[in-house]
Amino acid sequence: MKAIVTGGAGFLGLRLARALLEKGTLKDGQGHDQAITELLLIDVAQPAAIADPRVTRLTGDISDPSLLKSAIDEKTGAIFHLAAVVSGMAEADFDLGMRINVDATRILLERCRGIGIRPRVVFTSSVAVFGGELPEVLNDSTALNPQTSYGIEKAIGELLVADYTRKGFIDGRSLRLPTITVRPGRPNAAASSFASGIIREPLNGEDAICPVRPDARIWVASPRTAIAGLMRANELPSDALGKQRWVNVPGISVTAGEMASSLERVAGADVAKRIKWERDQRIERMVLGWPPAIDNARALDLGFPPDESFDAIVRSYIEQDLGQPVG
Amino acid sequence: MKAIVTGGAGFLGLRLARALLEKGTLKDGQGHDQAITELLLIDVAQPAAIADPRVTRLTGDISDPSLLKSAIDEKTGAIFHLAAVVSGMAEADFDLGMRINVDATRILLERCRGIGIRPRVVFTSSVAVFGGELPEVLNDSTALNPQTSYGIEKAIGELLVADYTRKGFIDGRSLRLPTITVRPGRPNAAASSFASGIIREPLNGEDAICPVRPDARIWVASPRTAIAGLMRANELPSDALGKQRWVNVPGISVTAGEMASSLERVAGADVAKRIKWERDQRIERMVLGWPPAIDNARALDLGFPPDESFDAIVRSYIEQDLGQPVG
Repeated sequence: MKAIVTGGAGFLGLRLARALLEKGTLKDGQGHDQAITELLLIDVAQPAAIADPRVTRLTGDISDPSLLKSAIDEKTGAIFHLAAVVSGMAEADFDLGMRINVDATRILLERCRGIGIRPRVVFTSSVAVFGGELPEVLNDSTALNPQTSYGIEKAIGELLVADYTRKGFIDGRSLRLPTITVRPGRPNAAASSFASGIIREPLNGEDAICPVRPDARIWVASPRTAIAGLMRANELPSDALGKQRWVNVPGISVTAGEMASSLERVAGADVAKRIKWERDQRIERMVLGWPPAIDNARALDLGFPPDESFDAIVRSYIEQDLGQPVG
Repeated sequence: MKAIVTGGAGFLGLRLARALLEKGTLKDGQGHDQAITELLLIDVAQPAAIADPRVTRLTGDISDPSLLKSAIDEKTGAIFHLAAVVSGMAEADFDLGMRINVDATRILLERCRGIGIRPRVVFTSSVAVFGGELPEVLNDSTALNPQTSYGIEKAIGELLVADYTRKGFIDGRSLRLPTITVRPGRPNAAASSFASGIIREPLNGEDAICPVRPDARIWVASPRTAIAGLMRANELPSDALGKQRWVNVPGISVTAGEMASSLERVAGADVAKRIKWERDQRIERMVLGWPPAIDNARALDLGFPPDESFDAIVRSYIEQDLGQPVG
């Protein structure tokens, strides 16, 4: 079976690819375990080389219908659709966000419909689909009311995935990912970029700016939890989701101040004091519009693993990503 | 100011046009009252002639960008976007539903953005945006979970209207209309068509089939309430809606059996017995997936007028549409 990861050059896409290759099998749209004979990574950037004969790569604009037409064929049993324009960029460039986050998703779903074998599709959505007046703890019946273009576009993607599934064109499921932290690498254009930066940069000996106030509460998960959630989303029997084709991936609720305290506990006060608190209203407005906490009950019932604590997330980043022992 | 009604040859579109011409003014996107100097009716069918020099007509496919480009110009201050493929047809022809209910809406919004004068846009959505596991009485924070292509498409339209408003491209508001009854004329391809047919046909001396069981509960409003809601939606100050750009237009909750009883009370047992009860699973599944009742509180606060009772709806249809006295 051919499996596809869009956004396959991104941080999560590459980690997912490695996890899929290690696992070796995936469920197809009929719920059968199939050996992965080809893993195609698609991205606008050139995906990093992975030394595995099953890996193929395709570089190009995912909103170009001919690209997905050549990529998705009758052998394609499982797709992870991660490619997206991030929140800050979708807000700054409305047309780009609509083109990649909405149009490309629809083109992908149409192509799946066209090949007629009903592949299993995991779509990465986001907690940015929530917004407006929010309860303190959201749950699966909280109304979507996104207040960013990114959130609107992800909500439209979820609706399309749900209807293409109901019509029998695909077997789809949407995962609302919390803010993922700690991401390795450099800051990006996501409004939530600081949630990784304030941990990553100080550990690297650099100052980091926290653009939100210390009591700003956000909903986060580790990369490991995100990858485990993506894998679990492929495994889940279709009936387990019923008419709710989305899952709020388990997260933990922390304030920016608590994140700094975790860093101090795990890595020491000298490291934590490299966080500089300089509020940026544009970022704060977007971030504070997202949900502070979501009830994890349904996701846990469905077998999605949670993080233990933010201290554990910081510790795991230091040990796994930086390869350093934690004292 | 130029005002536009899409779906202007339809039953609601024509009634709305007459009401707008009588009122003579509308709010533009800046909230100013403007005299209607031109009222353009757009439809795929030829709109009926209205003897008023302000009325212009445009016949064509609303998903053709050149049509809306020629229609929407710098003089356009208010738009009522009613054109849609109805529920039964959108379910039967997925591509047609997406093209008219999603693509044409987006083309319309893009054209509004393009002219740069931020017109006031009223978008007709539907209670079909709700579905799945529903509470007995829904409210404004009930999650959208449409289980029909029509509902998905209207939900996408609402999201687009909300984001185009937030970005300042339009001043938009979406109205979720209940099932409208009693519609004059003939049955259409809407799954809810029977809700008018079981009143209209018996009053016309014809048998009518009710395809849902007598205890099937639906959420209905009269044409008068729908038109009053559309007019109110144009009048509402933008701030009154805040971050919730939709309004659930007031409805009343009745079962099919109660509708038959109303008909019997108002028009007599001989008329009511022309309703034949023959269940149609396809229609029943769609109709029972829609909300049985919605809390009207916010809509009433916002000045949307409700119907008094289903008896009053039947009485008004006989008096106003059929021009007959009720005994």
